Amino acid sequence: MPAFRFHSTRSLVQPMRATLATLQESRIREVANAGMGRGDVLPFWFGESDEPTPQVIRDAAVASLQRGETFYSHNLGLPDLREQVAAYASRLHGAVGMDRIAITSGGVNALMLAMQALLDAGDEVVAVTPVWPNLTAQPVVLGARLRCVPLSPQPDGAWALDMAALLAAITPATRLLVLNAPNNPTGWTLSAQEQCTILAHCRATGTWILADEVYERLYYEPTPNACAPSFLDIAQPDDRLVVVQSFSKSFLMTGWRLGWLVMPPALTPHMGKLVEFNTSCVSVFTQRAGLAALAHEADITPRVVAHMRACRDTLVPLLQALPGVSVAPAKGGMYAFFRLEGQPDSLALAKRLVAEAGLGLAPGVAFADEAEGWLRWCFASQDTGRLAEGVGRLKKWLGL
Amino acid sequence: MPAFRFHSTRSLVQPMRATLATLQESRIREVANAGMGRGDVLPFWFGESDEPTPQVIRDAAVASLQRGETFYSHNLGLPDLREQVAAYASRLHGAVGMDRIAITSGGVNALMLAMQALLDAGDEVVAVTPVWPNLTAQPVVLGARLRCVPLSPQPDGAWALDMAALLAAITPATRLLVLNAPNNPTGWTLSAQEQCTILAHCRATGTWILADEVYERLYYEPTPNACAPSFLDIAQPDDRLVVVQSFSKSFLMTGWRLGWLVMPPALTPHMGKLVEFNTSCVSVFTQRAGLAALAHEADITPRVVAHMRACRDTLVPLLQALPGVSVAPAKGGMYAFFRLEGQPDSLALAKRLVAEAGLGLAPGVAFADEAEGWLRWCFASQDTGRLAEGVGRLKKWLGL
Repeated sequence: MPAFRFHSTRSLVQPMRATLATLQESRIREVANAGMGRGDVLPFWFGESDEPTPQVIRDAAVASLQRGETFYSHNLGLPDLREQVAAYASRLHGAVGMDRIAITSGGVNALMLAMQALLDAGDEVVAVTPVWPNLTAQPVVLGARLRCVPLSPQPDGAWALDMAALLAAITPATRLLVLNAPNNPTGWTLSAQEQCTILAHCRATGTWILADEVYERLYYEPTPNACAPSFLDIAQPDDRLVVVQSFSKSFLMTGWRLGWLVMPPALTPHMGKLVEFNTSCVSVFTQRAGLAALAHEADITPRVVAHMRACRDTLVPLLQALPGVSVAPAKGGMYAFFRLEGQPDSLALAKRLVAEAGLGLAPGVAFADEAEGWLRWCFASQDTGRLAEGVGRLKKWLGL
Repeated sequence: MPAFRFHSTRSLVQPMRATLATLQESRIREVANAGMGRGDVLPFWFGESDEPTPQVIRDAAVASLQRGETFYSHNLGLPDLREQVAAYASRLHGAVGMDRIAITSGGVNALMLAMQALLDAGDEVVAVTPVWPNLTAQPVVLGARLRCVPLSPQPDGAWALDMAALLAAITPATRLLVLNAPNNPTGWTLSAQEQCTILAHCRATGTWILADEVYERLYYEPTPNACAPSFLDIAQPDDRLVVVQSFSKSFLMTGWRLGWLVMPPALTPHMGKLVEFNTSCVSVFTQRAGLAALAHEADITPRVVAHMRACRDTLVPLLQALPGVSVAPAKGGMYAFFRLEGQPDSLALAKRLVAEAGLGLAPGVAFADEAEGWLRWCFASQDTGRLAEGVGRLKKWLGL
């Protein structure tokens, strides 16, 4: 027998990492669960369209399955897909080599892989909030220290970055800056000029930038490339920059779990190891679907974006017409983020709206403390009439 | 401007975590890369059958895609699939509730999730080796400290556990014990009695057991349940035990990336959060394939296992007949692990066999230092004639 004295307990006193218990379950799901199984609720709580993936994309996966492509594949993705992703990124942002691309099991997986590549426990991460909660949870899972720089709501309902505050927060002690622009949930977007300022600062401090740009194509301001400003437009290949992308939004492929990373070439082989240790690879049939999506991008994405814009331009004016509502049209993304006067508790409000109005929205507090009192409405809806019906329910609930 | 002095460099002096650089790229892939694009190499290096997934499983995914099931789903998996997985585990091991099941993006993803749930940076992990290298890499990715307890090769070529050495290594300071039995690469398997001894010890030390049992059905000893001994047979639901399973081996589904975890019920909601932060969910169409696999398990798995046994019983005697070869028939798994007298450098040998004999094997050193001088041959082959041809090539290369 070993020489040490056995502890007396076998109960689950410490059932897991203490860190894990501090991670909040999604308060979006908390609201959605409250409405689960109720056919009379109009759900706008999750960040996905209610339109299935285009047939031509699904057909490519079906054909692959029928060919029997059911084996392991490359950690970094099919060479064909990496090449086509690089070509697509190059069309939007200037030359991006395929040696900078890794195919991942969705955008969130790309973010987790990037953080595993860059963060040791104890490292300092700066994040701009409000933001999709996964982005701030991942550093915590990895034992990093998180520091948030809040956007500020403006009188018109738009959110704005205080650049001086952000730059002051990023010091040589900052290992990683996490940014999501166009932003979920606020619709806030970085300008090219702001990206230049941030990149210059992070070059000086030696800080990595992790840019979640999955909404880049869902951008409603006039641009030459039909795309939001990207750090790829201004950075060099060997900058400390990792950009996360996804097929989910631009190709209506949320449920497929297919995304990619753009990174400095020197990082790519190491990312291949991390893919091996996390998921091994993405299914070949899913990657074939990605190839079909890119091959038909000119047909699919502009249609998706035009429809999203129509959704935004249906919903936002209807909301703006309600007394006590502050909301600005999002520059990018697929959300209306709004405040209702006299309703400071967004979780309680969202639950009441489910129960009393049959309207399913996400509570602002899910995204940051400073977003308390706000609600997120995903306007990605095949039928814009659903949006009008939702506003009608809100109006009725408000007694208007 | 901030008050600190900027560092002068923006070059990639520290391009990523130092830890990441220490992780070895797969030496199996190093050998495979050496043979890439050479049609004259018979590959037995990877751990997968060359038989595509059964049609009935593929059909279920195709039908799901045709129905348009392309949306996000539950973090923990479709309730139907969790229920069927629980029923399957219960048939093999006694009652397992679906509140203990999480569906994951493959077995390796299940392992990574479990480690994220249990390991803080600096925690001590004990692993029994030789083992699939991902199992020892994952704790390192998470900043844990790894301590290996080696199996020992016996004169007949089988590998054996020194139980006293293992128990001595597991102290109250040990957060997690990682075990893979039936074992990749050695074929070593824990007996039920050994599992009882280990469980009792870990209960006393408060150590979690992470049991990778993905080869449980590929087991060739006589048993009442056509399954290797499992910790689930002997543990209580609230024991500090997490078992990892996969559809890959028993259902010929390597490329699908579909697996599951069995854990204490109290851990399950937290695992749901980790799934959200790692991959969000598994594609619904992939989960439908899993449901079809379980529905047809009685047709599929016994046939797969019988064929694997035929493969083992073809390959091992042929190898044993060669002078200078030590190899024992694996009790479980799908590998012949053998030593060739006078060949101490397995990586160099494996590369020479590719180049000079057209034979693709995995080098033992990929699995542990103590496996240096050994080679792993995956015998999962639709055509057992391929195995005989492979041995013929080895024989010729040996000048026999």
